Amino acid sequence: MFGVIKRFLIGRPLKSHELGEQKLNKTKALAILSSDALSSVAYGPEQILIVLVTISTAAFWYSIPIAVGVLILLSALILSYRQIIFAYPHGGGAYVVSKSNLGVNPGLIAGGSLLVDYILTVAVSVSAGTDAITSAFPTLHGYNVGIAITFVILITILNLRGVTESASILAYPVYLFVLALFILIAVGLYNIVTGGVSPQLHTPIGTPVTGISLFILLRAFASGSSALTGVEAISNAIPNFKDPAPNNAAKTLMAMGALLAILFSGIVFLAYYYGISPSEKVTVVSQIAEETFGRNFIYFFIQGTTALILVLAANTGYSAFPLLAVNLAKDKFIPRMFLMRGDRLGYSNGIIILGIASILLILTFHAKTEHLIPLYAVGVFLPFTLSQSGMMVKWLREKPQGWVPKFIINTTGTLISLIVTLMFLITKFSQVWSILIFLPIIVFFFHRIKKHYDAVGDQLSLKTCKPPLTIEGNVLIVPVAGMTHVVENTLNYVKSLSPDQIIAVYVAFERDDEKKFEEKWKKWQPDVRLVTLHSHYRSIISPLTKFVDTVEHKAKEGNYRVTVVIPQFIPKKGWHNILHNQSSLLIRSFLLYRRDVIVTTVPYHLIK
Amino acid sequence: MFGVIKRFLIGRPLKSHELGEQKLNKTKALAILSSDALSSVAYGPEQILIVLVTISTAAFWYSIPIAVGVLILLSALILSYRQIIFAYPHGGGAYVVSKSNLGVNPGLIAGGSLLVDYILTVAVSVSAGTDAITSAFPTLHGYNVGIAITFVILITILNLRGVTESASILAYPVYLFVLALFILIAVGLYNIVTGGVSPQLHTPIGTPVTGISLFILLRAFASGSSALTGVEAISNAIPNFKDPAPNNAAKTLMAMGALLAILFSGIVFLAYYYGISPSEKVTVVSQIAEETFGRNFIYFFIQGTTALILVLAANTGYSAFPLLAVNLAKDKFIPRMFLMRGDRLGYSNGIIILGIASILLILTFHAKTEHLIPLYAVGVFLPFTLSQSGMMVKWLREKPQGWVPKFIINTTGTLISLIVTLMFLITKFSQVWSILIFLPIIVFFFHRIKKHYDAVGDQLSLKTCKPPLTIEGNVLIVPVAGMTHVVENTLNYVKSLSPDQIIAVYVAFERDDEKKFEEKWKKWQPDVRLVTLHSHYRSIISPLTKFVDTVEHKAKEGNYRVTVVIPQFIPKKGWHNILHNQSSLLIRSFLLYRRDVIVTTVPYHLIK
Repeated sequence: MFGVIKRFLIGRPLKSHELGEQKLNKTKALAILSSDALSSVAYGPEQILIVLVTISTAAFWYSIPIAVGVLILLSALILSYRQIIFAYPHGGGAYVVSKSNLGVNPGLIAGGSLLVDYILTVAVSVSAGTDAITSAFPTLHGYNVGIAITFVILITILNLRGVTESASILAYPVYLFVLALFILIAVGLYNIVTGGVSPQLHTPIGTPVTGISLFILLRAFASGSSALTGVEAISNAIPNFKDPAPNNAAKTLMAMGALLAILFSGIVFLAYYYGISPSEKVTVVSQIAEETFGRNFIYFFIQGTTALILVLAANTGYSAFPLLAVNLAKDKFIPRMFLMRGDRLGYSNGIIILGIASILLILTFHAKTEHLIPLYAVGVFLPFTLSQSGMMVKWLREKPQGWVPKFIINTTGTLISLIVTLMFLITKFSQVWSILIFLPIIVFFFHRIKKHYDAVGDQLSLKTCKPPLTIEGNVLIVPVAGMTHVVENTLNYVKSLSPDQIIAVYVAFERDDEKKFEEKWKKWQPDVRLVTLHSHYRSIISPLTKFVDTVEHKAKEGNYRVTVVIPQFIPKKGWHNILHNQSSLLIRSFLLYRRDVIVTTVPYHLIK
Repeated sequence: MFGVIKRFLIGRPLKSHELGEQKLNKTKALAILSSDALSSVAYGPEQILIVLVTISTAAFWYSIPIAVGVLILLSALILSYRQIIFAYPHGGGAYVVSKSNLGVNPGLIAGGSLLVDYILTVAVSVSAGTDAITSAFPTLHGYNVGIAITFVILITILNLRGVTESASILAYPVYLFVLALFILIAVGLYNIVTGGVSPQLHTPIGTPVTGISLFILLRAFASGSSALTGVEAISNAIPNFKDPAPNNAAKTLMAMGALLAILFSGIVFLAYYYGISPSEKVTVVSQIAEETFGRNFIYFFIQGTTALILVLAANTGYSAFPLLAVNLAKDKFIPRMFLMRGDRLGYSNGIIILGIASILLILTFHAKTEHLIPLYAVGVFLPFTLSQSGMMVKWLREKPQGWVPKFIINTTGTLISLIVTLMFLITKFSQVWSILIFLPIIVFFFHRIKKHYDAVGDQLSLKTCKPPLTIEGNVLIVPVAGMTHVVENTLNYVKSLSPDQIIAVYVAFERDDEKKFEEKWKKWQPDVRLVTLHSHYRSIISPLTKFVDTVEHKAKEGNYRVTVVIPQFIPKKGWHNILHNQSSLLIRSFLLYRRDVIVTTVPYHLIK
């Protein structure tokens, strides 16, 4: 049953050597890895205006120099990540770069903050996309949580099906969104050039504005930088590219940077020239589209693709999270299960955990995740800063040919990222303080996990000297609950092993029962020694454990090993299990985990 | 850790022979078993007026004859249950009485509907009590669900601590509530007698009312009968009484009936004489109390104890549900686990399941369970009808001395209960239809479960002839994941058993790995045969199972038994388990449940 559903949802399992076919070409990679970055132009320019409007609409002209600042930051980031791609061709996320250049702890801070960030990416972007949809269809209001969760489940299934398949489906909306915004910007600029828009709508650049301060400008800049979240996705995902992976990744990155720059500048410029004010109810992009086209088909096309790409931005999280998890798991900082490839060769554990975590976030915040956005931005810019300063250290240390311009690019990137991070921390402390508590905790756990794995490795390795245990003989204990075919079957097996000693143990709850049982047993199995134990507290485990302890204590003296052999009947149908006290399971786990006793289960399959 | 918390919450475990000390005396039993019935006077009279007000306030005088009808029904029920107590001194709930007189299916219908009803009792009464509290403290509005769930958890813990302890704590509120209502009724009557209340407030009895119909009157009567929910609790709980249990239970039942009759008539009469109309915002009891005392201390005392007893009415469910479950489990209609006594000698599985189920109901209905009340009433009156007609059959069949008056009592009870049930079904079909679907389903499952238990009993019993299996020898298969101390330890154990054959199995994901491993193995364990299997789909279980199948097929021909011996390392701390792939657990469950193979686990305990 479960198998059939699974096959239907995610497709047939793939053999390990089919991995190559699952790799991405540039067109698909651009779609799958840049939806997050591209979608952020839908809200980035608006964030700038929201800060400026607190002074006055006359301050809107500052959006132009601020946008230039964002473009410089974008160029620095893109160039820097291009350098990272070639320096770390096996995948150079902030974690790898920071760890190898700055040390383990900066690496773990970057890794931990990105792990959480990808969960936020999914929750925030799916919620934002759902908002866009329910704004268009108000009857759907009130179902936000359900719609958002449905989207997360769909995207999770798509990703479990495999990278290329999800890329094929996801490519259309991304390119349609780019096309829609290109049309919007082109028609807008044409209108301006042909004089179709009055230049009186905006204050000219350079007009003095009272009340403006460096703090406000930096804050506006930081807010605008939220449009850059997601640019790191490509450098994390190099292993997903077709060969030659680094070259393809670098080209895709440049293409994404160019698209992002064009869309961002276009939207900022049109918003400025049209004199658009941010509003609670209508987005800036929607206002521009309405000014340009009126509420006709193209307007709805733009709004529709925007909503869609916001939902799909979640997919960037699905590409990046499992790969980051693989890197962390390889270094033993998180559980090993993130290393396993699923039926369709994707890292399914990472995909599933990401899906569950973001559904939980959506449920907790009722799909209203606005106040998570600053946290999300800090979670992005902190790793940006760390990875770029890591690259600075790398150039300084290695000094390869022509390192100076590379060093300058990374230094610029570091400084701007650092400023953005600090601005978020200072101006929105009430929304981002939690990261200061959370990061040390997660780094602590990373270290604990690594310590454990190292300790296990040491103890299992045959290199450590350990005198081999000599086993002189075996004592087999059979807990019996009655005189049945199940017990008979087990005793036959135990006898066939011809151990040194067999002891059957019966736990009685009432004194009368004890004697009766002993008498019957003598007639039934005269050659098997029976020990009856009395239980005051109606528990089987506690008297049994005490007995096993006693036997084991004696056995150890003579180098005997103790095995508890549990008779267990297996019902024909799975649901029947809830009808039986799972004593045998309890006994087994208890003895195995708390005592040094071997546990054997002898099944007796019921046939009806 | 868990043990300490458990001890703190529910106390030290009790020995089986301490059961007698846990029995209830009459005073405590009255408190613990009648809170449900007594609390329903807080809403029963109101239900009558709510129906009558649909005609006009002039119809209010009908509440007096309707109340007389309810009192007759109450007397019939009390007398009938008194007869049941003596006829079924080991606990005579509707299930037992219906089953032994009417047959299995009527018994199961009664039992099933009561099982669900007790869950409804808990959810509805806790929600109602929470409403009363949040009405008094409006700042708590919006926390209803949380408060209600907290109450359920508290009551669950109290019941896990044991019957007498919960009785001691719960007795005070019940008696305080009775005291509060006695004061209210006494002062109210005194005012009426001394002429402090104007008789003009109400229409005299017998005034003709236009628009009244038999249907309306029956509907009002059915609604008023909801005050009688809970009277069956005592006859279910006879085993909880001190000896002589039946006599004590009968006396307690009579006392409860008398209290219920006095409180119910008092409230109905005062409401009629004061001319009180039901209101959305203020309960009838609250209006009477305000008329009588004004909003002074006594008013708040009455309101407070009312809220408290509504919450505690849930406790009746906790006394009755586990005992009913025991009766059903003894007859094998529900899982056997309901028969086990917990640490404190209560039937803790029943208590916990009841708690969880009612929390789920509260969550589903957001602690707004008003529309569950009709369902709840049907769920009570259906078993009432069945158990009373069962008693009718009993008297007719056995005809003991003086059976005629007993037969008349039960016949009266049957007829009135039947009318009430039908009235609910007819007048509130939209709210109670689900019981008509639900009851056949639950009865079906009861039969399925019984069928399974009977089949298991047959198969295990030594009376069935089965030729004993001869075992000629043993083949031991050891799945190995590497060359470690864990595997070494297991191989030592396997060798000590000196079986006929040992096969080590290694599952490789890559071809290179396969050969390397085989070479190393030859040097390390030259005397143990190694088989390597290749896995295309990165799964260990599927190639391993295929291999085991092949071996088993061969082994069966020579009467050999196959044992799979799994090396498993046990981490020092519980949380470490999530850091390791639980392959050994998976292999074990898979082989045990799907194949007829014995599974042995050899633990290797890590020490750090």
